[in-house]
Amino acid sequence: MKMGAKPFVHQINVTWADCDPARIAYTGRLPYFALDAINGWWEAHLGGDGWYQMELDRNVGTPFVRMEMDFTHPVTPRHPLMCETYPVRLGRSSITFRVRGRQDAKLCFEGLFTSVFIIADQFKSQEIPGDYRQILEGRIVAE
Amino acid sequence: MKMGAKPFVHQINVTWADCDPARIAYTGRLPYFALDAINGWWEAHLGGDGWYQMELDRNVGTPFVRMEMDFTHPVTPRHPLMCETYPVRLGRSSITFRVRGRQDAKLCFEGLFTSVFIIADQFKSQEIPGDYRQILEGRIVAE
Amino acid sequence: MKMGAKPFVHQINVTWADCDPARIAYTGRLPYFALDAINGWWEAHLGGDGWYQMELDRNVGTPFVRMEMDFTHPVTPRHPLMCETYPVRLGRSSITFRVRGRQDAKLCFEGLFTSVFIIADQFKSQEIPGDYRQILEGRIVAE
Amino acid sequence: MKMGAKPFVHQINVTWADCDPARIAYTGRLPYFALDAINGWWEAHLGGDGWYQMELDRNVGTPFVRMEMDFTHPVTPRHPLMCETYPVRLGRSSITFRVRGRQDAKLCFEGLFTSVFIIADQFKSQEIPGDYRQILEGRIVAE
Repeated sequence: MKMGAKPFVHQINVTWADCDPARIAYTGRLPYFALDAINGWWEAHLGGDGWYQMELDRNVGTPFVRMEMDFTHPVTPRHPLMCETYPVRLGRSSITFRVRGRQDAKLCFEGLFTSVFIIADQFKSQEIPGDYRQILEGRIVAE
Repeated sequence: MKMGAKPFVHQINVTWADCDPARIAYTGRLPYFALDAINGWWEAHLGGDGWYQMELDRNVGTPFVRMEMDFTHPVTPRHPLMCETYPVRLGRSSITFRVRGRQDAKLCFEGLFTSVFIIADQFKSQEIPGDYRQILEGRIVAE
Repeated sequence: MKMGAKPFVHQINVTWADCDPARIAYTGRLPYFALDAINGWWEAHLGGDGWYQMELDRNVGTPFVRMEMDFTHPVTPRHPLMCETYPVRLGRSSITFRVRGRQDAKLCFEGLFTSVFIIADQFKSQEIPGDYRQILEGRIVAE
Repeated sequence: MKMGAKPFVHQINVTWADCDPARIAYTGRLPYFALDAINGWWEAHLGGDGWYQMELDRNVGTPFVRMEMDFTHPVTPRHPLMCETYPVRLGRSSITFRVRGRQDAKLCFEGLFTSVFIIADQFKSQEIPGDYRQILEGRIVAE
């Protein structure tokens, strides 16, 4: 990320439907939120196309091979959930995103999510296609 | 785990509802499955009580502070999902479970999930209560 | 609804995560979308408060007693899902909402959803409180 | 159903993950449960095949065109959810199932769910194929 570049933030409206009897968002929802943010990142950088269009129109799949998340503060419907999302590691056929979820400026969770590129209709690994690589390269944030 | 002890396995019937357009279980469902297995572990070892009864009847909460998962093989409705589940690390107020999900004997995912014990109605950290510790201690699997 | 009044529309970004192997939003997701729209209606008319704040801050619950939905066209991630939402029947202690989900101007589903008002911490039926009645009355759309 | 015939019952283990801040299963989960029961009915009567195998192996889809549900009692993790499920109306290309969800012998919800048969890879309506019709005909419960 160039200095001063504004990071991509995906906003989620957390609601009653996401919460469990402890009255906070259920743990199982938090990976959903993070994945939704990564899909939103693609939509924002790929002309509106998310995973659905990538699979059906472009024959590109990006199944996940790993995720790790730290949960530091409960997520509730009290504030919008702002998910700062950016790519951090680019391999030959893999990409890792970091997602940081914040509510009211407090960090609620952060995580790393690695997916690999495949030829969708063959479920076969492939190098990151050139147009995707170009989009990703300029946006990698060194950590 | 004593030698020869049989590990706890939580079985999940994966269905159409869990699958995405790639015709495999959606990535966001896999943490749900693993959490369901951990809840099932508690039900099996706490006289039928899962997180719901722990919270409402026992005033004990176990919010998660970390999860990490590796996805090694797609999960589908073709076979039951067998989730081998056991505690691996016991802290003063935290417990870490490992979950290994297999279908047709193939490893599909494995993960580590750490939660901390709290007094539920105060959302305040506490040491692991004695009865829980006793249940956990005898079942820790060194890795 | 007064003539010319603009109906409330709740927008949903349908994604990969909502779709099943038939590559359309899973049937089970459609009631979620409609409920999300009704929660959004409350947020828009109750100063930002949805079901979560109603329950926790106002001690008002609105459990559903009935829903019916007709599905007329598949929902996909190709277009935003525009959910036209409004109250249609006001009882002494019950309210019925209609939700019409459209994509690209095509009707995808419509449904009726009836809930009753309760005192949340007693799970006991109550008449619709005055401030809620006032908000609802002016917005009932005769059908 | 022949007199004395035992109705099909699909059992669901309701958990913490299904519950909302009112500490009962979230309304949006109840259609999921009912649909899961209908998928379970197919699995039980179609040699283990549910919607996933019907779509992928048999090229038969059964999208829903209507659902209606009455909610009469909260669903909780206190008891297993027993979903009595059976077909009630057979059309030329449509089938309607009734699902009755009970916990501890109390009726929690009941609903009617109508789907139509399609040629899956064409998303085109078709008459109910003979083998499916045979399975359904003998099991219709007149109401």
